Amino acid sequence: MVMRFFSDNAAAAHPAVIEAIERSNRLDTAYDGDALSQSLDRAFSDLFETEVRAFWVLTGTAANCLALAALCPGYGGIVCHRDAHIEVDEAGAPGFFADGAKLMLVDGPGAKLSAQSVDAAVGRVRKDVHQVQPKALSITNATEYGLVYSPDEVAALGQTARRHALNFHMDGARFANAVVSTGASPADMTWRAGVDALSFGFVKNGGLNAEAIILFRTELADEIAVRRKRAGHLASKGRMFAAQILALLENDRWLDNARAANATAATIGRAAGDRLVYPVEANEIFVRATAAEAEALRARGFDFYDWGSNEIRFVTSWDQSAEPVDRLAAAIASL
Amino acid sequence: MVMRFFSDNAAAAHPAVIEAIERSNRLDTAYDGDALSQSLDRAFSDLFETEVRAFWVLTGTAANCLALAALCPGYGGIVCHRDAHIEVDEAGAPGFFADGAKLMLVDGPGAKLSAQSVDAAVGRVRKDVHQVQPKALSITNATEYGLVYSPDEVAALGQTARRHALNFHMDGARFANAVVSTGASPADMTWRAGVDALSFGFVKNGGLNAEAIILFRTELADEIAVRRKRAGHLASKGRMFAAQILALLENDRWLDNARAANATAATIGRAAGDRLVYPVEANEIFVRATAAEAEALRARGFDFYDWGSNEIRFVTSWDQSAEPVDRLAAAIASL
Amino acid sequence: MVMRFFSDNAAAAHPAVIEAIERSNRLDTAYDGDALSQSLDRAFSDLFETEVRAFWVLTGTAANCLALAALCPGYGGIVCHRDAHIEVDEAGAPGFFADGAKLMLVDGPGAKLSAQSVDAAVGRVRKDVHQVQPKALSITNATEYGLVYSPDEVAALGQTARRHALNFHMDGARFANAVVSTGASPADMTWRAGVDALSFGFVKNGGLNAEAIILFRTELADEIAVRRKRAGHLASKGRMFAAQILALLENDRWLDNARAANATAATIGRAAGDRLVYPVEANEIFVRATAAEAEALRARGFDFYDWGSNEIRFVTSWDQSAEPVDRLAAAIASL
Amino acid sequence: MVMRFFSDNAAAAHPAVIEAIERSNRLDTAYDGDALSQSLDRAFSDLFETEVRAFWVLTGTAANCLALAALCPGYGGIVCHRDAHIEVDEAGAPGFFADGAKLMLVDGPGAKLSAQSVDAAVGRVRKDVHQVQPKALSITNATEYGLVYSPDEVAALGQTARRHALNFHMDGARFANAVVSTGASPADMTWRAGVDALSFGFVKNGGLNAEAIILFRTELADEIAVRRKRAGHLASKGRMFAAQILALLENDRWLDNARAANATAATIGRAAGDRLVYPVEANEIFVRATAAEAEALRARGFDFYDWGSNEIRFVTSWDQSAEPVDRLAAAIASL
Repeated sequence: MVMRFFSDNAAAAHPAVIEAIERSNRLDTAYDGDALSQSLDRAFSDLFETEVRAFWVLTGTAANCLALAALCPGYGGIVCHRDAHIEVDEAGAPGFFADGAKLMLVDGPGAKLSAQSVDAAVGRVRKDVHQVQPKALSITNATEYGLVYSPDEVAALGQTARRHALNFHMDGARFANAVVSTGASPADMTWRAGVDALSFGFVKNGGLNAEAIILFRTELADEIAVRRKRAGHLASKGRMFAAQILALLENDRWLDNARAANATAATIGRAAGDRLVYPVEANEIFVRATAAEAEALRARGFDFYDWGSNEIRFVTSWDQSAEPVDRLAAAIASL
Repeated sequence: MVMRFFSDNAAAAHPAVIEAIERSNRLDTAYDGDALSQSLDRAFSDLFETEVRAFWVLTGTAANCLALAALCPGYGGIVCHRDAHIEVDEAGAPGFFADGAKLMLVDGPGAKLSAQSVDAAVGRVRKDVHQVQPKALSITNATEYGLVYSPDEVAALGQTARRHALNFHMDGARFANAVVSTGASPADMTWRAGVDALSFGFVKNGGLNAEAIILFRTELADEIAVRRKRAGHLASKGRMFAAQILALLENDRWLDNARAANATAATIGRAAGDRLVYPVEANEIFVRATAAEAEALRARGFDFYDWGSNEIRFVTSWDQSAEPVDRLAAAIASL
Repeated sequence: MVMRFFSDNAAAAHPAVIEAIERSNRLDTAYDGDALSQSLDRAFSDLFETEVRAFWVLTGTAANCLALAALCPGYGGIVCHRDAHIEVDEAGAPGFFADGAKLMLVDGPGAKLSAQSVDAAVGRVRKDVHQVQPKALSITNATEYGLVYSPDEVAALGQTARRHALNFHMDGARFANAVVSTGASPADMTWRAGVDALSFGFVKNGGLNAEAIILFRTELADEIAVRRKRAGHLASKGRMFAAQILALLENDRWLDNARAANATAATIGRAAGDRLVYPVEANEIFVRATAAEAEALRARGFDFYDWGSNEIRFVTSWDQSAEPVDRLAAAIASL
Repeated sequence: MVMRFFSDNAAAAHPAVIEAIERSNRLDTAYDGDALSQSLDRAFSDLFETEVRAFWVLTGTAANCLALAALCPGYGGIVCHRDAHIEVDEAGAPGFFADGAKLMLVDGPGAKLSAQSVDAAVGRVRKDVHQVQPKALSITNATEYGLVYSPDEVAALGQTARRHALNFHMDGARFANAVVSTGASPADMTWRAGVDALSFGFVKNGGLNAEAIILFRTELADEIAVRRKRAGHLASKGRMFAAQILALLENDRWLDNARAANATAATIGRAAGDRLVYPVEANEIFVRATAAEAEALRARGFDFYDWGSNEIRFVTSWDQSAEPVDRLAAAIASL
């Protein structure tokens, strides 16, 4: 028996999502003219306690890069962490969607940026036409290493962004995990802290294949609508996407799912103790382990990624049963 | 009761497709590493009687433009019909995906190109660096007006393409309808006639949200794989796309579905008689009608598009029951 | 002896231009930090009777496409004439500079647009995300066929542009010829008529290799400055470009040069009489002539272009002496 | 009196260059159809002892990025040094010209790459579609810090490039200085060592405004010709560019000029002694100096750049007379 902890990406979709897709399978207006798609603005405006515009898309890469294209001109730069998903795992999509815009990389532990590190990075750029000038800031919450920005931390970055006239994007592939982790409201985590656009992830958290772009600056909506179509992301039967998202918003399933994944991660994190590379704040656990130890864990049926030469990564998801988790925790504790 | 004939895009997905999605909803390898996705090359190679590479994508726009990006450099031109979907209905996506490549428009009745019209268009281009040089040819089969290219017509275009060193793409959003209409084999309709890449449509023919790019020049596969990811079209749970496509290939459902739609269109076409703008060869019917006549049809509950000022368009789909079709046929006949 | 009438592009530069280049050849600040480059804003602001920002570039293609890139987003369309230089002779540069933006072609005699034809073209576009929406208008004055827009005609187009929220660009590769032809002020020909940016041509009118972008909307200047650098058009020794332009502005040389070319064209035009395809309003003459007649003229030493099968084109330039012109006029008259 | 050592970019053009421009100022074929432009292939083929194709362009940025666009697809990566001009000083032009291609940065002293550092950088890239795959390598010779790659060092990089299937570009903005410094033949410095395309700089070495792209893989010539036009770099009177380049090749002026600049740099370098940050191998001198020392030098009339907080940069050029050089050497020696 293989017990998978290698990615929340690969988990199953929540049954309510599958049912919603099935229910939405009827003749209806094409593209996003259907009633489900049309209800998204309202649903997310309620959730975020302000008027927003919401767009379904297929992937996190599309959500991130469509948003960035609207927030940064092709001749500008996007400040982000060196380990950001947009830099490391999107095949250069930011450069493609945003007409050649350049990622400007900042360092910091746990893939986390700070107002100070962003400030310093912007300060290093000569203010002339020979160097690319930063026009946007993108952070990931929770980060690629499972750390979480608090509303205050986001707000500090938001102020930095405003001071340097940077538009502010949040990659929320694991936004649900961050919200659960901080206990803060979605509003406090985003627009109240200065975020202009959010990639709101559902795929890693019970969705099948639907993410959302949330625009707090609603005047960008027309541009995003066109860019989505132009990038081949306006599905003919968009109701399928809206149905998934609404099913997860309903009854706070998105929060329940994230709560489950975070709790599972906490269990494993406690077992790892001093071996933890980063505190476990969301649903990822990075553990120091030798190659032999990793091998031993794999021999017991656990599936996970190596992360460099002396670390291993576990990612938990909403649907894991107690048994493999307890066995993993025990196995790590006994290393 | 509204009886919808405005688009096959908006039809429901086939129940077997929904079941296949449901069955595929389990923990598995992410992206396209799953067994279903991995089996597509084999399935389509069998169907086309040659080794092909197959890629699922979300939309026809993505299928067309990813293929065109691999077939035409940004500084080149893509010869297509003035009424081609890539020109008229894709929001400039060819220019986006193919790095600024230019569509070079050719006229002809029924959105159909001929070897002669392509030849003449290419001949009008000065052979210098001041004019964009054509590098690719794209046709739609069945066309946007429901006409079908026979294998011989495709082959004549294929020879023209080869003579001018144009890569040859077929937009097969309604490929199934064309195959059923001609009775020819998929192989004769495509690579044996010189086609390099095919956008194989499923969404209008019983699929939910999955199209396929079929590469007859398999050496382009690595580039398409990268471009798909870079355009945000590599879904995390790609098995959902593969499942849909395989469900439609299974038991020739794709052919049955197209056969049903074509037969329905033929019924309506016969009723329209002399009012037909084009012969009905697939699942679209263009009918001459005054505004008053269109109004009268709408008053009886039929939903369809006006096409210019004196024509109306009906599109049939795989799932239409006999009654509304018979009522529409009668209504048109009695105009 | 070959007497060249094939292009004003190929003429020599004015001696004052060469002298100015020579004079500017000294150690100085690089790029556009030198005193000559820095004086351009002032010089053009005086000429246009309003505050403008001016940028030298190498070619008309660069001038046009940098301006268009600032006036039209990549997902937008640029309305222009089917025979516009940007469509026919710039190798797809608008799509390259403006991130895939699409040219939307309008017909009309003599490569001339009218408020009506632009209005109709914009009106044909469906207002949805599937069709590219026009965002800019570009006209050429004098046109590619030597016709001239009067200030009133430009103003009518300016109003149309404003009504449809189109930014308004003028390709003035032969702006000098148009100014001389109308007798209107540069201001009346441009910003007072609603033009946002002008490509001000010098190369065809006595310059060596320098054109200017004139921004009447000065808030675009920072973007143009960056785009110029990013396109490799910020020359190290930009003083050379500024020197050329200033030498031509000095003592109204640019007007004298255009006056000479227009007068020469008028002489030839009168000789052509009924054979003229268009009235001669600037420095181009299109003459109906059979292949045999064209051949006969070439045999006498005149060099010019065929224009389609039954027309020939002559272009005059600032530096033509009386003799070949008189001989050409006589030769045409005697056909 | 201000004695300028801040950039070779700002120096005057060689008198022979100005004379050549003047001589070339006559009616002739436009663009690059003139006899001077047409002779470039031959001239550079002789110089490089192999058949090459040569293209004039306006700037080093254009030369670099046109070449890179032909050597790297938009979805690929270009390995270069973190301090490379293409990364630091070209306003994102590589991303613009090469359709979003990504620069992949490598560290190393003196802006110099080694086979080992390139190997390691390529090795760190996961071979999947999520990470941008390197497709080209670009080095600068002489480097941005005045170091020079020997033919053997270039050849080692050439082998590394071939092993990883990277196309190999050399930014030779100061190629002349490198050739003089090594005493090697242009052929040994480039194609014999595996270089596919060279940006051959003239502007910093006595030219006015002309650089050359030299293609050792001549099959790329058609693409470069189109890309040059499409980027607005095909000047109407290209003979001006060809004339400059030919004037500098004539009588080995390009070597004499570089020899003078290198000798001047050596003089200053010797004066700097232990303060040198890098050995002086070409025409740049980086000197450790406190802010107070820099201030003192400026007070004596020397103009130069600060380089970070404790270094200053001097660049020598072909036309510097002995006096200011000797005064600078003395001033540095006496710090």
